[in-house]
Amino acid sequence: MEKAQNLLASERSAGNGLLNRRLFLAGGISAAGVAMSPISSAESDVPARHAWMQSPGRPLGKYGQPSKHEAAVIREGIGSQPGTLGSGASRTPLQDLRGTITPSGLHFERHHSGIPDINPEQHELFIHGLVEQPLRFNMESLSRYPLTTRTYFLECSGNSAPNLATAAPQVSCGRIHGLVSASEWTGIPLSVLLDEAGVKSQAKWVVAEGADAARLNRSIPLDKILDDAMLALYQNGERLRPEQGYPMRLFLPGFEGNTSVKWLHRLEVSATPAMSRQETSKYTDLLPDGTSEMFTFEMGIKSVITSPSGEQQLPGRGYYEITGLAWSGQGPVRQVEVSADGGVSWAPAMLEEPVLDKSLTRFRIPWHWDGTPCVLMSRAADSSNTQPSRAEHIRMKGHSSFYHYNAIQAWQVTGTGGVSNVFV
Amino acid sequence: MEKAQNLLASERSAGNGLLNRRLFLAGGISAAGVAMSPISSAESDVPARHAWMQSPGRPLGKYGQPSKHEAAVIREGIGSQPGTLGSGASRTPLQDLRGTITPSGLHFERHHSGIPDINPEQHELFIHGLVEQPLRFNMESLSRYPLTTRTYFLECSGNSAPNLATAAPQVSCGRIHGLVSASEWTGIPLSVLLDEAGVKSQAKWVVAEGADAARLNRSIPLDKILDDAMLALYQNGERLRPEQGYPMRLFLPGFEGNTSVKWLHRLEVSATPAMSRQETSKYTDLLPDGTSEMFTFEMGIKSVITSPSGEQQLPGRGYYEITGLAWSGQGPVRQVEVSADGGVSWAPAMLEEPVLDKSLTRFRIPWHWDGTPCVLMSRAADSSNTQPSRAEHIRMKGHSSFYHYNAIQAWQVTGTGGVSNVFV
Repeated sequence: MEKAQNLLASERSAGNGLLNRRLFLAGGISAAGVAMSPISSAESDVPARHAWMQSPGRPLGKYGQPSKHEAAVIREGIGSQPGTLGSGASRTPLQDLRGTITPSGLHFERHHSGIPDINPEQHELFIHGLVEQPLRFNMESLSRYPLTTRTYFLECSGNSAPNLATAAPQVSCGRIHGLVSASEWTGIPLSVLLDEAGVKSQAKWVVAEGADAARLNRSIPLDKILDDAMLALYQNGERLRPEQGYPMRLFLPGFEGNTSVKWLHRLEVSATPAMSRQETSKYTDLLPDGTSEMFTFEMGIKSVITSPSGEQQLPGRGYYEITGLAWSGQGPVRQVEVSADGGVSWAPAMLEEPVLDKSLTRFRIPWHWDGTPCVLMSRAADSSNTQPSRAEHIRMKGHSSFYHYNAIQAWQVTGTGGVSNVFV
Repeated sequence: MEKAQNLLASERSAGNGLLNRRLFLAGGISAAGVAMSPISSAESDVPARHAWMQSPGRPLGKYGQPSKHEAAVIREGIGSQPGTLGSGASRTPLQDLRGTITPSGLHFERHHSGIPDINPEQHELFIHGLVEQPLRFNMESLSRYPLTTRTYFLECSGNSAPNLATAAPQVSCGRIHGLVSASEWTGIPLSVLLDEAGVKSQAKWVVAEGADAARLNRSIPLDKILDDAMLALYQNGERLRPEQGYPMRLFLPGFEGNTSVKWLHRLEVSATPAMSRQETSKYTDLLPDGTSEMFTFEMGIKSVITSPSGEQQLPGRGYYEITGLAWSGQGPVRQVEVSADGGVSWAPAMLEEPVLDKSLTRFRIPWHWDGTPCVLMSRAADSSNTQPSRAEHIRMKGHSSFYHYNAIQAWQVTGTGGVSNVFV
């Protein structure tokens, strides 16, 4: 106890119990008071009393599934437009996950007319419009092309919008921020396919359209398509999941998720944008002066503490690891700072390596909670921007911009350890 | 056609059609003859004739699964000891996957008495033996500790042993080499827990034991436990799968898979190894002189071309991307070379970034197949070792060493495009 108190004093990095992140590196964590969590001496003889240690277990299997004891870890906040079952969203339960990869089964969904049951042998991709040679591809012809692999986040631009409400919604972290996920994506660089078609000089845009019943389409600047856009065929090692665009999707690193058109069916090269429903009626940002910003593609710098977070319960005072995720559509995360005193003081969190471009970055920092009420916050920065406060965001964008909300999330911790969403 | 021929001449990097890997970077691939794969002009009007474009698709869901059209992509070579269903192995279908992460559902399995159905609320981990304070942990007490995240491969030391046969087995890549997989693992550094228990000065080993009915145990050098060993709780973002040790496993980066004890139940710190069945009767390497090597923990440098590979069929001459995986238990992969002429000439393949320590590295190189029979091979190197030929391996280790076979894999391509395993 005395050792822990001394360490708390010497390793303080910001107010209210935040400790120096180098504790992780120096192996000094155990002195930080973790041992004060309830663990008792073991018997010297370890008994084999559980049923599962007495007889052979389940057989080998063809395709594994999570433990039945994890049945509560599912996509949450599933909702669809009235009268529909597949025109809505489901969210990743960020508070239940660790690391940076999102299991494909828990990747968030956002569909506009459900998940089409596409036969990959009949699906085709067309590249046409302002090209020298229109092209048609099927799975077999695409199998000849080079495949690149990159780990990227994907975020719906409506993610975190619940925090635009006037009162803080009392829900989990995933229900507020779970329209972001990360996968290892493998696909064909679109520049290769456009190069084969031969883009005409007056081309400036590419209209991408899906093979779902909504025929969802978006206009993408040609520069982005030729830069790092991918025709994604694989997700986390295996073929795309149906709800992620099987058999193929457009993937635009760092851009709002809606533009990474799933079940990609055609790419029409054009001189002007299509001005379609998804870029006029939706996915425009209404500003306080009544004007709207269009084609705001890049997702901003954002972070969120996933543990402790809303609806969780701290079991008691003592040592914790505060952890969360940070990401930016504009490049790698440069820094994440954490505050345990509602923003009065900030300490730099440790970032898990490798910190990848346009991917989720896990941050963590040791914290000793003394049992008093407090407010936890995280604030991320990339090379050019720092996450704004909620007040700053609303001052700039108003309450109606809806898309691209990236303000700092604050979690209130009560004296009894309850954690809830709070606006500060 | 002429353009492609000129490029083939100017971008040659080794014999028999291997092209320079910088083609990937310079965007010159489309000139390499990919366009000669069968694609025809598209209609200017794209018809919406498929059923899935006519009516709404499937609803949103709580936990996603692969497409029904991918039902053939499953673990393969499932086998168990006579009279048992869970004492054996299943293999990752490497030839069907891309990227570097193995989907958790397809991670290889190796069990000695099936998959125990452990209730996480009742499971305990004991740390005892030569420690100042024996400790007992449950899931709740472990939840206070810091978690680190790393992407590592896991390989059974019996992987690739089918190639020790006198005749080359005519099976898929996965059936020969599929006892290797890679995941993003998240867990508690074991040094933290051992530090809390207080290791006594005479300690040199830690005996790890699982809670399966086999009570599988292995003796691990204390130095490894204090270096980078992890008590893994999460795999690819979510809690461990049951067949990977739910609710917790030992994870030893780079060591033979058998030592990363699943369903970890106790760690007994000791002065000497236990000399248990799994380190005396099994997992020892019988040499030609009749002696056996014991405690050969580190997995050697290895690579395998996953496409084209055994049982696959090339659809015709022209451009292909040769791709595969490389890994080493001794550090990051430094280089992979590919030969398309049975080892006469070699060209360096491109390595997908980031190249991570003790993880799977994807390599790829463009290749123009002229339709003549040939032999494809890959040869990997880390900072200290290069993969041996099969003949060299057998000269050093004999035919009975069984574990740690890491020789170069050769694939024969016939004039009609059939691919098969061949010993050269």
